[in-house]
Amino acid sequence: MAKWSKFLSKDTTLLKTSEIRDLLKLTEGKNVISLAGGLPDPSTFPAEDIKNITDYVLQNYASRALQYSATAGIPELRKELVNLSSQRGITGINENNIFVTVGSQEALFMLFNIFVDPGDHVFVEMPSYLAALNILRARNPQFHGIPLTEKGPDLDKFEEELRRLKSEGKSPKLLYIIPTAQNPGGTTLDMEGRKRVLELASQYDFLIVEDDAYGFLVFEGESPAPIKALDKEGRVIYTGTFSKILAPGFRLGWIVADEEIIQNVELYKQNVDLHTPSFTQFIAAEAIKRNVIQNNIPRVRQLYREKRDVMLQAIEEYFPKDARWSKPVGGMFVFAWLPEKIDALNMLPKALERGVAYVPGSSFYYDYSGRNTMRLNFSFPPKEKLVEGIRILGQVIKEELA
Amino acid sequence: MAKWSKFLSKDTTLLKTSEIRDLLKLTEGKNVISLAGGLPDPSTFPAEDIKNITDYVLQNYASRALQYSATAGIPELRKELVNLSSQRGITGINENNIFVTVGSQEALFMLFNIFVDPGDHVFVEMPSYLAALNILRARNPQFHGIPLTEKGPDLDKFEEELRRLKSEGKSPKLLYIIPTAQNPGGTTLDMEGRKRVLELASQYDFLIVEDDAYGFLVFEGESPAPIKALDKEGRVIYTGTFSKILAPGFRLGWIVADEEIIQNVELYKQNVDLHTPSFTQFIAAEAIKRNVIQNNIPRVRQLYREKRDVMLQAIEEYFPKDARWSKPVGGMFVFAWLPEKIDALNMLPKALERGVAYVPGSSFYYDYSGRNTMRLNFSFPPKEKLVEGIRILGQVIKEELA
Repeated sequence: MAKWSKFLSKDTTLLKTSEIRDLLKLTEGKNVISLAGGLPDPSTFPAEDIKNITDYVLQNYASRALQYSATAGIPELRKELVNLSSQRGITGINENNIFVTVGSQEALFMLFNIFVDPGDHVFVEMPSYLAALNILRARNPQFHGIPLTEKGPDLDKFEEELRRLKSEGKSPKLLYIIPTAQNPGGTTLDMEGRKRVLELASQYDFLIVEDDAYGFLVFEGESPAPIKALDKEGRVIYTGTFSKILAPGFRLGWIVADEEIIQNVELYKQNVDLHTPSFTQFIAAEAIKRNVIQNNIPRVRQLYREKRDVMLQAIEEYFPKDARWSKPVGGMFVFAWLPEKIDALNMLPKALERGVAYVPGSSFYYDYSGRNTMRLNFSFPPKEKLVEGIRILGQVIKEELA
Repeated sequence: MAKWSKFLSKDTTLLKTSEIRDLLKLTEGKNVISLAGGLPDPSTFPAEDIKNITDYVLQNYASRALQYSATAGIPELRKELVNLSSQRGITGINENNIFVTVGSQEALFMLFNIFVDPGDHVFVEMPSYLAALNILRARNPQFHGIPLTEKGPDLDKFEEELRRLKSEGKSPKLLYIIPTAQNPGGTTLDMEGRKRVLELASQYDFLIVEDDAYGFLVFEGESPAPIKALDKEGRVIYTGTFSKILAPGFRLGWIVADEEIIQNVELYKQNVDLHTPSFTQFIAAEAIKRNVIQNNIPRVRQLYREKRDVMLQAIEEYFPKDARWSKPVGGMFVFAWLPEKIDALNMLPKALERGVAYVPGSSFYYDYSGRNTMRLNFSFPPKEKLVEGIRILGQVIKEELA
């Protein structure tokens, strides 16, 4: 970075590369079983339906699907997203509460830029979604971590920290939370907990950004309604994604929020990329309308439940007895807490050499703690590779402990 | 903005809405001839070719086209963009110099965020592309304007300002320039001028962001090679777009730059949206490979030349004699300088009432000067509407002068 680095803006120097992506690069072209990624199983893509829909869209809407469109999203998709939201229990909204984005990543990018100033007090779960943390890090806030228990974030500790802040005359700005099938922790917060989070937000006057990436991907028990479904004040900003229920290659996500907040997002998005691609929006709208997504979801859940079971069984067999790990009721990941002696980041090169990749858990902690943790993906690798990967990883861990 | 505005970040308060978009909203659903937009003629979209290609992509690449992909773009498209770039005279580059973005808008958004700090000295043409100016405004730089002559930016004035800055011990950071079929000015800088701009950049040590949105859309004479084609140092960052040569609804653009700069863009893009949609990238790569774009370009040029001629003839007939206007050799716009007495922004409501829309030229000046100017689009409206729109507008102007 020698030649042009003197021209870089100050913000750019705050950027952190996504460890997941750098890791994926490391294993490219090599014979490595990757438990590091976050890719859906491609067999879950309804390719044939998508082919029929694209033909239909180009036959009937070519002049609009290939043209510029509105910054907030095409009306057809916003309307269908009102319908899809109601299936997650979010009601009482209309098209003006919906905003279409380039993946939910762009939603988070815009929201954190719109609402977070340097030094602002921001709450995140420990661990939390790595790519969201990276956006936040670039905003240079004052982070506060909420430790994850087996039942979701520790709300007593959360409230304690809020009280402490208040006693110092400081105000919290925003909570970023993944209440359902948390990434990477695999936990789901119950309804009582969700109500309490919302009450705390109201009492201490902060915004909630609720990431519901896996809301449709709960494969055991019910998927609780999101916090947004309880929100009367417009304090909760909800983000959803098509990446897990249709196809990530479309890069389509959406925001559900108070109309005033949507207007700020619209203003910001005009600068970022004018609008989300029209073509794929028409496809997604039609996929909801034709129930392609709704019919696909049970298949995805079934497959991921099976793959989770395969991974959990292998972990049970091959991991050391004093390790702990999540038993996720949804999503695509198992999170493991290894004996304190293990440094998962330092151990990674050894694992890669032996042919297996994972994400060191410290990437998911805003302060890079959690050195003895790791995230393991079960959605992408074939079942036999899951077993083989965990077997090798178990060996590497045991050797490290010896 | 009453309820949640106290939560907005300081950056957000710098955001300006795109006047073009607000205007378009004003005319939605009304019987207004819009010369305000910047939309391609939908008859230029090769819809049938695109249908064949999407079928082919879903038949052969579904598992990749629907999956996550690399942040910099899929290898197939980066390779084809090396080929397409050579048709603009940019040679000696490889895939690592190419970066795929969500329209060239996202390219400009990322580049200005990566390189511009508040207070930095940034040079822009007067007038210049409105959406680029809006991104820059949000970065809060120190603007310096280069007046546009009939032959492009006034390079003597540019050099004079650079000298003045230097004498004050200050350094320029960046020049944003549209050398070919300038938007909105319609001018094209000749090769001699391009060489001089590059020499000044080298001498005074600043970066050039070269927007070549209309490079393939020159319909009279040759399209001069971009400044990037002359660049030996890697000082020029080139942006291109599929919006004018394939379909804006795909939201696909690209950057050609030094590999070091590409790496910074990659880091930034991971935060913004992880990557550009895979599906439309596969379509665009195939469209270049099959010469769909190359075969389409002559048709687009022919149509826009005809439409330009229709507009220019109508202006000649209906505008007051003391008005001046550009005779663009490419692109989609005519820019008009009206008698000083006219305030195009104030006049707009009257024009809308009479059934014709345009963009007041002041939006294209970083300092909102150029109050007597307007931008007129000829690519989208049908020919008879172009004549009718200009006829009405001529009347409104003459009444305003009376």
